Amino acid sequence: MQWELIGSLAAILTMFGFVPQIIKMHRTQSVADVSLFMLMQFCLGMFLWLLYGWHIQDNILIVANAISFSTLIVAIGIFLKYRKR
Amino acid sequence: MQWELIGSLAAILTMFGFVPQIIKMHRTQSVADVSLFMLMQFCLGMFLWLLYGWHIQDNILIVANAISFSTLIVAIGIFLKYRKR
Repeated sequence: MQWELIGSLAAILTMFGFVPQIIKMHRTQSVADVSLFMLMQFCLGMFLWLLYGWHIQDNILIVANAISFSTLIVAIGIFLKYRKR
Repeated sequence: MQWELIGSLAAILTMFGFVPQIIKMHRTQSVADVSLFMLMQFCLGMFLWLLYGWHIQDNILIVANAISFSTLIVAIGIFLKYRKR
């Protein structure tokens, strides 16, 4: 139970890890210092983690990376929106 | 073997995921648009993933998150260095 808590907390922190960056980009409408390469590298990486989690049948890995992947798509969308300005 | 490759590729992409951001911060010496909250949230989250990986004895999780955690420490250090300017 203790380890489920640690795994769940780890999952919550990292799966919503880009939320503060999304909020900041949305609020400031400025993305000049943010690395698009970072966002895209994480997007691909988390998609592969998702596949790996599915393979080893680890539900925490699956859910965490599915949500991470979704936030990365949002982050990349916001980045591209404000980069054009 | 195919799944080991996918897991390893996922690990490589995400464990070095902040490297492009570190390079950009170092190059531009500007961090105004980067969220410190994001960096600190990932730092704690990856430390907990590391503990969880150790518990379930998954070497890929352990190594990936140990390296991620290290890069986050570097990223936070660079952020704080250039924020002062």
